[in-house]
Amino acid sequence: MIASAGAARAGDPVITQMQPWRETLGDPVNAKAYGTPSEFENHVLRRRVEWLTADAFSSIDFTPIDQLDGLITPNGVCFERHHGGAAQIDPAQHRLMINGLVDRPLVFTMEDLQRFPRENHVYFLECAANSGMEWRGAQMDSVQFTHGMIHNVMYTGIPLRVLLDEAGIKPNGKWILAEGADASGLTRSIPMEKALDDVLVAFKMNGEALRVEQGYPLRLVVPGWEGSTWIKWLRRIEIGDKPWHHREEASKYTDLYGDGISRRFTWVMEAKSVITSPSPTMPIRHGAGQMVITGLAWSGRGRIKQVDITLDGGKNWHKARLDGPSLNKSLHRFYFDFKWDGKPMLIQSRAHDETGYVQPTKDALRTSRGVNSTYHNNGIQTWHVQADGEVENVEIS
Amino acid sequence: MIASAGAARAGDPVITQMQPWRETLGDPVNAKAYGTPSEFENHVLRRRVEWLTADAFSSIDFTPIDQLDGLITPNGVCFERHHGGAAQIDPAQHRLMINGLVDRPLVFTMEDLQRFPRENHVYFLECAANSGMEWRGAQMDSVQFTHGMIHNVMYTGIPLRVLLDEAGIKPNGKWILAEGADASGLTRSIPMEKALDDVLVAFKMNGEALRVEQGYPLRLVVPGWEGSTWIKWLRRIEIGDKPWHHREEASKYTDLYGDGISRRFTWVMEAKSVITSPSPTMPIRHGAGQMVITGLAWSGRGRIKQVDITLDGGKNWHKARLDGPSLNKSLHRFYFDFKWDGKPMLIQSRAHDETGYVQPTKDALRTSRGVNSTYHNNGIQTWHVQADGEVENVEIS
Repeated sequence: MIASAGAARAGDPVITQMQPWRETLGDPVNAKAYGTPSEFENHVLRRRVEWLTADAFSSIDFTPIDQLDGLITPNGVCFERHHGGAAQIDPAQHRLMINGLVDRPLVFTMEDLQRFPRENHVYFLECAANSGMEWRGAQMDSVQFTHGMIHNVMYTGIPLRVLLDEAGIKPNGKWILAEGADASGLTRSIPMEKALDDVLVAFKMNGEALRVEQGYPLRLVVPGWEGSTWIKWLRRIEIGDKPWHHREEASKYTDLYGDGISRRFTWVMEAKSVITSPSPTMPIRHGAGQMVITGLAWSGRGRIKQVDITLDGGKNWHKARLDGPSLNKSLHRFYFDFKWDGKPMLIQSRAHDETGYVQPTKDALRTSRGVNSTYHNNGIQTWHVQADGEVENVEIS
Repeated sequence: MIASAGAARAGDPVITQMQPWRETLGDPVNAKAYGTPSEFENHVLRRRVEWLTADAFSSIDFTPIDQLDGLITPNGVCFERHHGGAAQIDPAQHRLMINGLVDRPLVFTMEDLQRFPRENHVYFLECAANSGMEWRGAQMDSVQFTHGMIHNVMYTGIPLRVLLDEAGIKPNGKWILAEGADASGLTRSIPMEKALDDVLVAFKMNGEALRVEQGYPLRLVVPGWEGSTWIKWLRRIEIGDKPWHHREEASKYTDLYGDGISRRFTWVMEAKSVITSPSPTMPIRHGAGQMVITGLAWSGRGRIKQVDITLDGGKNWHKARLDGPSLNKSLHRFYFDFKWDGKPMLIQSRAHDETGYVQPTKDALRTSRGVNSTYHNNGIQTWHVQADGEVENVEIS
C-alpha cells in the first residue's frame, strides 16, 4: 500500500549504522519515583486559555486530545476545572455524610467505604462548556481548546444506590444534593432516578487513587451528565424533596435561549464527535498518499453506533471504522484510512448514537437555541486541510 | 448491611466541624507539568527485590498490584524489566527495518508508521518469571513481589501482519526475529502463525506515547505470550525459515524439567489468578463483618470465564463476581463480598478460562514439572488471614 515510503529509506544511515543508544547502557530506572513520560513527549500537557482563566485557583486545563490515541486518557493529562484551587485532603481525615430525608443519617470514613461492593466502568467526563467558545463561530486554534474539556478513564467506586439503601430513603426523598469539601463548596442537585441508576461514589481512576485535581480522595461519577455534576472532594449527600437551585445550577450551567428564557437541568451530554488528527496542531507532513484520519465520538445516552466522515464539507459521507471496546457512555475511537490526493479538504465527523440521535450542525443548534448560550455545543466541527497539509479551524454553512 | 459502622460516626468532629481545606483555597494546578498522584499516595510505587537485581541497568520493578483496583495499570507504575538500562531514543532518529525472506526490505520512520491502519486493544503483559520465586515454597512477603511482574494497558498500534504484507513474505518465511535497539539488543524468535495473528507494533499505551522503560518509541505486543517476547525499542523484524535459538530463548526463558530436559518456546501464559487484597501488605483493619476480597485473573488463551474463592484452604469454593469489561487476553477484576466471622482464614482464588482450563495447585505443577524451573508458575496462591487481620504468605498441601 505505502511500501514506496518504506523502500525509499532502505539505505538510511540511521538504521544501517550503529546508534548511540546501542553502544552505551541506557538510563537506570528509578523504582522509587512515580514514572513520567519521555522528555521527547514534554509537549503533551494540559494547557489553559489565559483569557478564560481568572487565576490559578479557578482555572480550566484542557486535555491534549490532539496528541492522544486509543480511548483511555492518562491521569497525568486529564482535563480539570476547579473553583477554589485543588484541595489537599488527608484521606484519613475525610468523611462522607448522608443526611436529610433518610431513616439513618450516616458518616463514612474512607476505610468504611472499602467494605461495600465495588464496580468498574469506563466513562467520559465532559464539561458542559466544552466547545462553548465555538458557539458564535470558529475561534480556537487547536482541538485541545475546541474539544479538550473531556477525559475518559476507568473508575472504581460504589454504586450510590448501595449507600442510599444503607441510609434508607424516606418516601418523599426525590432529589439529592452532592457537596464538595473544598473551598468552593460546589453543590449540584440530581434527581433520585439518576442517583439510583448508574451514579458511582468513586475513589480510583485508571486503577490508582483519584488525582488531587480530580477530587482526591472521593468524587461523584454521574455517567453521561455534564462534568459539573461530578462533585469532587465529595463530603456530603443530602436527600431532599425538591432541587436546591444553588449557584451552579442557576447563575451557571443553564442555557440562555434566543427568546431570553433559560433552560436548566440540561444534564445529558448529547452525541458528539471530533477529528483529532489531522487538526490545527496535527498537520499532514507526509504529503499526498495513504493516511489516517482519527478522532473521538461519545454520547451521554449510551454507545456510539456509527461515525461518518466527509472530506468535502458534507457533500459526500463515508463510514469511519470504530475501534477498541465499545462501552456505555465512554469515548469511542474512530479511524478513516484513505488515500489523500493532496488537494485541500473540508473534513468533518458526525456521530450517531444507539438511540438513533445524529450529531447536528452548528447552524442547526443556533436555529433551535440562538447564540446566547455557551453550554452544550455538540455541533459538527470543520477543519480546513490545505494543500501543504496545514489545518485551520473554519466554519461552513 | 454495615450501617452500624456509618451510624456510629454520626457525631464525628471531622465531618461536623469546618476543615482546613474548606477554609482556605486549595493549591493552584500547574498545567505546565505532567500530573502526578497525591502526596498521600507516595507509597504506591514500583519496587524491586534487591537480591534479584544485579544493578540499576538490569533491574526488575514490580507493579504495586496490592494498591491498585480496576483493570487498567497506570503507566507510572507499570512493571518493567530491562537488560541494558532504559534506552533514551529520539523518535526522529528511530527506524523500523523489515528484512530477510521478504520481497521488499523496508525501513520505516515513526512518521511513516502513522500512515498505516491502527488498532486498540487492552492486553496483559506478564513476565515468564512472575511468581518464580514461589516455585519451591512461599517466600515473598507481598503480592507486589509474588505476582507483580505484570501490567495491563490499552495499546495503540499497527497489526504486524499489515507491515509484513507490505514487505511481502517469501514462501519459506516461517519465523520472525524481533530485535531491540537498546544496548542489550534483545532478540526473540516468534513463529509466523503468531506474527500474522494478533501481534501489534505499538507506539502508544493508555492513550499516550510508550514510556521509555516500556520501549519508547516502539515495542512489539505479543498478546498472551511471555513478556520477554514483547521486544522493546523495536528496530528490526527479520523473516527467516527457522528459529534463531538466541540467548534469551536458549540459556534463559526455557523450563528445566525434573528429568533434566529443558522445554523451550513455552510462550503462552496459562490461566492464573491471585487475591490482591487482603494480602500481606493489605491486612484487614476493620475487624469482623461485611468486607470485600478482590483480585486479578488472566489467561494468555483468551477471556476468563469464572473465578472461585475459598476461605478454608480449598474445602469449600464460592463463585467470585467478575467486574468490568471482559476483554481477550486482558486482566479481569474479581470481587467476593461476604461477612467475615473474624476467625483465621486460608484464602485462595482459582481461575477458569474460556478454553475450560482450570488454574492448578502449585503441587500439581511440581508433580508434572519438578522444582528446577522458575518460569511459568501459575499455581494457586494461599494467604493466611489471622484473627487480628494480619496476612501472611503460606503454602498448604
